Amino acid sequence: MNSILLSGQSKLRVKWLISETSDAWVKQAIANPIELLIDHAHCERKAAGVALQMMFRYLCEPGLAEVLSPLVREELDHFEIVLELLKSRGHYLEPLPAPPYGAALAKNIRRLEPERMLDNFLVSGLIEARSYERMSLLASHCPDRELQNLYKQLLESEARHSCLYWRLAEERYERGLVISRLEELAEAESEILSDLHPEPRMHS
Amino acid sequence: MNSILLSGQSKLRVKWLISETSDAWVKQAIANPIELLIDHAHCERKAAGVALQMMFRYLCEPGLAEVLSPLVREELDHFEIVLELLKSRGHYLEPLPAPPYGAALAKNIRRLEPERMLDNFLVSGLIEARSYERMSLLASHCPDRELQNLYKQLLESEARHSCLYWRLAEERYERGLVISRLEELAEAESEILSDLHPEPRMHS
Repeated sequence: MNSILLSGQSKLRVKWLISETSDAWVKQAIANPIELLIDHAHCERKAAGVALQMMFRYLCEPGLAEVLSPLVREELDHFEIVLELLKSRGHYLEPLPAPPYGAALAKNIRRLEPERMLDNFLVSGLIEARSYERMSLLASHCPDRELQNLYKQLLESEARHSCLYWRLAEERYERGLVISRLEELAEAESEILSDLHPEPRMHS
Repeated sequence: MNSILLSGQSKLRVKWLISETSDAWVKQAIANPIELLIDHAHCERKAAGVALQMMFRYLCEPGLAEVLSPLVREELDHFEIVLELLKSRGHYLEPLPAPPYGAALAKNIRRLEPERMLDNFLVSGLIEARSYERMSLLASHCPDRELQNLYKQLLESEARHSCLYWRLAEERYERGLVISRLEELAEAESEILSDLHPEPRMHS
C-alpha cells in the first residue's frame, strides 16, 4: 500500500479506489480540454488550500508540518504549471461551479478527534488517488500531445501524495482501523462518482 | 521604491517604514532566541496563509496568482527552514499568543473594493518591510552565528516580497493614491509598534 498504486492489468487499477473511472468520463474530459484544464488548476490550488488548512489545524502535531508544507508547495507548483499552459492557449482562471465530489466526500469526515484527523488524511489520500487514476487515463487517451505530456508530468506526484496521506494515517492510528475506515470512505467515494456529473470536471 | 529598500546610513532605514525599530526590541529579541524562532516560524506560515487567502479571493484577477503562488511557496520554504533549525535545538512549534501587531494592522484594511485589495497589498508589503528591517538587525546583532546566518539567508526575500506587493498595488492603482494610502498605513504601523510588547516576538 505504501509505494505502488498501480497493478499491471491492461485496465488501470489503483489501490484505494473501489471503482474504475468509466469510458464516459474519459470521453467527456477529452472533448472539453480547456474546461478541464481550468478545473484542474482549481483542483491544484484547492488541494494546496486543504493541506495548508490541515497543517494550521494540527500545527503542534509532530511530523505533520514537515510533510504538509512541502506538499502544499508542490500543489502550488502544479497550479502554476497548469495556469501557464492555460495562458499559452489564451485562457485564464475563471470561476467554475465545482462538481459535488469534494463537498460530498467532506461530509464523511467525522467531527470529533481523533477520528476527524484520520478521516482528513484518508479523504485527501482518496482524492489524490482518484486524480492519479484520471490523469493516467488522460495521459494515455488524450489526443493532444502537449496535454498528454502535462498529465504524464503531474500524475506521479498525485500517487506520491496519496501515499503520503496514507503514511500520515498509518503512523498515528492502528492499522486495522485505518484499513477499515479507508474501505468505508472508498465505498462512499465510488458511490459519489457512480453517476457522471454533466459538467466536465477532473472529478465529474 | 521598486528595488531598493535600504539607504546607506549607519542606522538601518527602510523605505515604507516611518519609524525605526528600537534598541529595546533588539535586546528583547536577542535575549529570547528560541521564543523568537518559534514566533518566526509562525510568521512565515501566517504570511503563506494570508497570501494564499488573497489569491483565492481575487482568483480571476489577471497577473495576481502568478505572483502570489510562488510567494506562498517561498514563505513555506522559509517556514520549513526555521522549523528544521528549531528541531535541531530540541524544540518544535508550540502555540504562542500573537502580539497585537497583525490584528491591529488588519483593522486598517477597508471593507469595500477596490480599496480593500489595495489595503491588502500595502499592509502585507509593510509587514514584509518590517520583517526585513528586523531580520537585518538580528543578522547584525545576534551573537549566535547560526541564527545570524539564518537571518542573513532569509532577509533578502522579505525585501523582495515587500517590493512584489508594492508592484501589485502600483500596477492596479493610480500612483498618487498608492503613495498617500501607504503613508497613512505606515503611520498606523509605526504607532502600533511604538510601545514594546512585553512578549518577545518578531513584531513585538
